[in-house]
Amino acid sequence: IDSGMFVYVRNLFQEMPAYDLALMLESSTSKTRLVLWQLIDPDMHGEVLEELNEEVRKSILKNMAPEKVAAVAEGMDIDDIAEVLRTLPDSVYQQVINTMDHQDRTRVEQALSYEEDTAGGIMNTDTITIRPDVTVDVVLRYLRLKGTLPESTDSFYVVDRNDLFIGSVSLSSIVTARAEVIISTLIDDDVTAVKADMPEADVAQLFEKYDWFSAPVIDENGRLVGRITIDDVIDIIREEAEHSLMSMAGLDDEADTFAPVVKSTQQRSVWLAVNLVTALMAVAVSSMFEGILSELAILAILNTLVPSMGGVAGNQTLTLVIRGIALGHIGDSNSRLILYKELAVGFLNGLIWSLVIAGVVVLWKQDISLGLVIAFAMMVNLTVAGASGVLIPILLKKMNIDPALAGSVILTTITDIVGIFAFLGTATWLLSP
Amino acid sequence: IDSGMFVYVRNLFQEMPAYDLALMLESSTSKTRLVLWQLIDPDMHGEVLEELNEEVRKSILKNMAPEKVAAVAEGMDIDDIAEVLRTLPDSVYQQVINTMDHQDRTRVEQALSYEEDTAGGIMNTDTITIRPDVTVDVVLRYLRLKGTLPESTDSFYVVDRNDLFIGSVSLSSIVTARAEVIISTLIDDDVTAVKADMPEADVAQLFEKYDWFSAPVIDENGRLVGRITIDDVIDIIREEAEHSLMSMAGLDDEADTFAPVVKSTQQRSVWLAVNLVTALMAVAVSSMFEGILSELAILAILNTLVPSMGGVAGNQTLTLVIRGIALGHIGDSNSRLILYKELAVGFLNGLIWSLVIAGVVVLWKQDISLGLVIAFAMMVNLTVAGASGVLIPILLKKMNIDPALAGSVILTTITDIVGIFAFLGTATWLLSP
Repeated sequence: IDSGMFVYVRNLFQEMPAYDLALMLESSTSKTRLVLWQLIDPDMHGEVLEELNEEVRKSILKNMAPEKVAAVAEGMDIDDIAEVLRTLPDSVYQQVINTMDHQDRTRVEQALSYEEDTAGGIMNTDTITIRPDVTVDVVLRYLRLKGTLPESTDSFYVVDRNDLFIGSVSLSSIVTARAEVIISTLIDDDVTAVKADMPEADVAQLFEKYDWFSAPVIDENGRLVGRITIDDVIDIIREEAEHSLMSMAGLDDEADTFAPVVKSTQQRSVWLAVNLVTALMAVAVSSMFEGILSELAILAILNTLVPSMGGVAGNQTLTLVIRGIALGHIGDSNSRLILYKELAVGFLNGLIWSLVIAGVVVLWKQDISLGLVIAFAMMVNLTVAGASGVLIPILLKKMNIDPALAGSVILTTITDIVGIFAFLGTATWLLSP
Repeated sequence: IDSGMFVYVRNLFQEMPAYDLALMLESSTSKTRLVLWQLIDPDMHGEVLEELNEEVRKSILKNMAPEKVAAVAEGMDIDDIAEVLRTLPDSVYQQVINTMDHQDRTRVEQALSYEEDTAGGIMNTDTITIRPDVTVDVVLRYLRLKGTLPESTDSFYVVDRNDLFIGSVSLSSIVTARAEVIISTLIDDDVTAVKADMPEADVAQLFEKYDWFSAPVIDENGRLVGRITIDDVIDIIREEAEHSLMSMAGLDDEADTFAPVVKSTQQRSVWLAVNLVTALMAVAVSSMFEGILSELAILAILNTLVPSMGGVAGNQTLTLVIRGIALGHIGDSNSRLILYKELAVGFLNGLIWSLVIAGVVVLWKQDISLGLVIAFAMMVNLTVAGASGVLIPILLKKMNIDPALAGSVILTTITDIVGIFAFLGTATWLLSP
């Protein structure tokens, strides 16, 4: 690429919204990414960083001088600065903080005092507050004087002189009220304040429940400390929904699609190691039946069928239950109900597929006892798969282990082992020459 | 439950928000659901229906008389009525439409004229329009006269006398402007109108890209026909993200956790049938090696290892690529890049795990050639798994088949067959007595 090309690309980038630039960086390899980053107008750097996913952001920040990070941070929202600073190593973090002016530093340090995944960690501090005893007219004159409102402002917060939160008044109720109406009469009863230490997943659920656009955040003393807007909540909802998908394949939710080969290999090998251990357990079970396997090669050939069907049926139940837990459909009160239901589904599926598979085997090998053996094993394994698909995620949840991460491995181990035992065990008993 | 209990429950339900009632219905079996539905205040029925997922909603509507459906529809938003009506059988639909008053009928029929998954299908028609040449003062006086605004109104739409869309003016720019300012000078350049036939996934992306709270919808002639608010967009984002998770297990995104046993069994059996066919293909491959399997039982015991590792490694790549395609990270321009990367990751993982597995096998069986055989097969299968994990979803996407639905089955079939071929084939060649 010659220098004329560079100028061209730089101009092109100036026209693009931050979201598109972030998408482009996320779609590039780590080397190209750094070159592209240099070509983006530094005034846009802050906005682009806000839009990037965590792992890509880290890979860019790692290569930036602390002064530059501080310069970029200046144009960003407080919650986003805090998010960026959290990903920096301590030494760089100190340098960045030191180059900030006093006001910014205090605000950022306050934001950092809240846990990352709580309301305090995702809130912004740019609220507009009004007193309960003023009239609509006074508020409108104040707003005109102000000239602009913070982005995504749909309501104002009513506080007393000690900043204690009293209530929320929507912008639309202010424009539809008569000029002499007192603010305290316009307070919206449907809006309650969110505590700063509330987990972000709970915050997201409140937004969905009440169709909020924004919500006030208060500290433990009931003082207004900030507000959360729906664009931050969307990110949480997307991450949460993606989390199950990625975890079930043993991947990090924020995994960078174009991470360097060695890094990706490292990240994936953990999961492959876990799988190897469980696969070796299945091998160990098979090897207990070496005798009959060496006598009847057909058993060796059919040995994968029952575990495979059990794994698929079990994973269907597991996925349904994991989603049910995440959506709040499955709790203590109805976990027994879903267990019975899935046991019944497993049993019924077992019945259907044991008939089908027995038919296939009898037609193929003209051996009725072999058909009986595999039918029985299928029956047992699909029923066990149904029960495991319900019990594993519920138990993991109780033990505070993420069911999406560990559930599938444990389930497959169980359906493999039960499947092999049921098939080769019954075969040893019924078919031994 | 006696009648006193019924009264108690009925009162309890009256205090609960629609979202919680919907959650409760979704967490119940189909029988309990109908009883609970009767206990909910009929005035709330509309709101609760709006919150329910599709399959549960259908199961309730199926049991309602058409007049009741029409009565419930009265209190609902037009887009939600349209959504409900779409799920009804034609005869019931006609009856419901006939009991509606003229105005509602025209509006609903207009909403139904748009495809379900487009901007037109999810929009509402309750927009507030203003003329470009009036002053802020006139608008404010008009709003005060109106008294209330439609829910979630954050902006007004400027149209000419033929309803042609000119632009959008935010509520916050109106309250901060001086009284004599002309509306046309306040038009927000960042807001563009959405065409009514735009697919809902694209609409969601625009909302995320520009952090919109709402957006105007226009028809093919540029006339304003409605608006979309972010709460509808959140549902789309959640569904989209859940779609991959559910499809990969062969489940419908809207699957009802507590569907009746027979229905669930039916729904799952399709997927199990597909799996049985692919598993039988693997069995057919194994049976080609019946000779060596009957001579060396250890091969039968180890036969599951290589396919299992290939399946896991391939599914990791597949999940990453499916997510990458959904997020727009992977397109034509960089699909070759990701293929090379995943081939390299597969090869490297193959190297690591073939060394590990060869070590385990040599230590266990004191047989170096057996170690070599399994190491070679592992190497081949993990590399093939990496390539398949990239190529399968990209090809399926090009053929307009959902990669999340079909990808995993095809991938596992390939890794099973390649794994067995590589392992038993090499064994036949190297170990035959």
